[in-house]
Amino acid sequence: MTVPGWTVQQAVDACARHGIRYIGLWREKVAERGVAASARATREAGVAVSSLCRGGFFPAGTAAERRRRIEDNRRAIEEARGLGTDTLVLVCGPAPDRDLDGARRVVAEAVAELVPYAAEHGVRLAIEPLHPMFAADRSVVNTLAQAAAIAERHPPDRVGVLVDAYHVWWDPAVDAEIARCGRRVFGFHISDWIVPLPDSLYGRGMMGDGVIELRRLRQAVDGAGFTGPIEVEIFNPHVA
Amino acid sequence: MTVPGWTVQQAVDACARHGIRYIGLWREKVAERGVAASARATREAGVAVSSLCRGGFFPAGTAAERRRRIEDNRRAIEEARGLGTDTLVLVCGPAPDRDLDGARRVVAEAVAELVPYAAEHGVRLAIEPLHPMFAADRSVVNTLAQAAAIAERHPPDRVGVLVDAYHVWWDPAVDAEIARCGRRVFGFHISDWIVPLPDSLYGRGMMGDGVIELRRLRQAVDGAGFTGPIEVEIFNPHVA
Repeated sequence: MTVPGWTVQQAVDACARHGIRYIGLWREKVAERGVAASARATREAGVAVSSLCRGGFFPAGTAAERRRRIEDNRRAIEEARGLGTDTLVLVCGPAPDRDLDGARRVVAEAVAELVPYAAEHGVRLAIEPLHPMFAADRSVVNTLAQAAAIAERHPPDRVGVLVDAYHVWWDPAVDAEIARCGRRVFGFHISDWIVPLPDSLYGRGMMGDGVIELRRLRQAVDGAGFTGPIEVEIFNPHVA
Repeated sequence: MTVPGWTVQQAVDACARHGIRYIGLWREKVAERGVAASARATREAGVAVSSLCRGGFFPAGTAAERRRRIEDNRRAIEEARGLGTDTLVLVCGPAPDRDLDGARRVVAEAVAELVPYAAEHGVRLAIEPLHPMFAADRSVVNTLAQAAAIAERHPPDRVGVLVDAYHVWWDPAVDAEIARCGRRVFGFHISDWIVPLPDSLYGRGMMGDGVIELRRLRQAVDGAGFTGPIEVEIFNPHVA
């Protein structure tokens, strides 16, 4: 989604051309071509899928809709397996009303329900806390502390967190929380926070152009034992 | 600043007309007419000044500039006294570089330096955490937990926090932190968070138009022992 105008084929070809050995794919793009064909294109380009974005969006106003979303997450787990990645990233979704606590409980319950199915498919769930400015419209999970508290109810190889620099850099507890997560750090996204911020959603900066202490965060995830590929995720029409 | 096009005179006259017995003033507006005249206008309208906004903006790139800002905060303390309010609201300011921890230390040191002067003037300091989306450009203090940690180094009647619903509503720890602050809750600002948010700075909503659980926050500050006036602070050109 850093290059949203490209197909999966174009993106993996560009990765191969530039010596980038991993790509994080998004379900929408995979759906355009299909899971099997996307997996083949990626494999043939010599690129591995580091993660699939995104499951989640669990809270909903009705039981039927919550059920539908759980089912959609089962499909996402299958797609992750089909693409050969072991990591499904969860953006947990907003509350359908003003009840933040209730929505947060729904998220924890949904994750718990998905863990066995994910395990059967060799997929682990990476809960991505989103910046608090997205608390109303994208995710009621807004800090690493919250994500870790949900993850810690499950085995450490099954549920963890995704650390996205753009979402967590401001948090006074960020170092301590990354250390707390330890091997539960399943992913690390980087971009930068430009000042002034052009747009909350599509105004992310190239690394080095903003104020985020990226080296410090890198050291924190390294210290936690993270050895996976680092994913560059920049939503910005001027970058793509 | 909810009615930024109005003078202090116009604002206090409107308060008097509508039976609003308190007004939170901003230094820029007070400066237009002067402290003594603003105090007189307010008093003659039968309106009391609930608080003065805003001191703060402590971190700076040089020692000389940090010193200048401390001096400016001494002026703000004097102005608060001159206006007859016991509360100066502090918006602590951004970091001059990428060193968030360093800037946070500067804030704590500056508050400590100001406490005796504020006490001499009968003014208490209310640290206002700003939403994490303002961490890069307005305040390195972004949670009630941070503000409380700074305040707790000082007597409870001298340094406390200002709870602004717009800034803290998303925080999973908001109830616990307000309870922790107890009598250190020196102020309570309300507005609402509209979805989608029209603008991070000037897109606040009228109470009830957004997703904030205002009643819950009101109960939390009541429970903490807060009995002061509730200040409506809506930055939105469509409201004024």
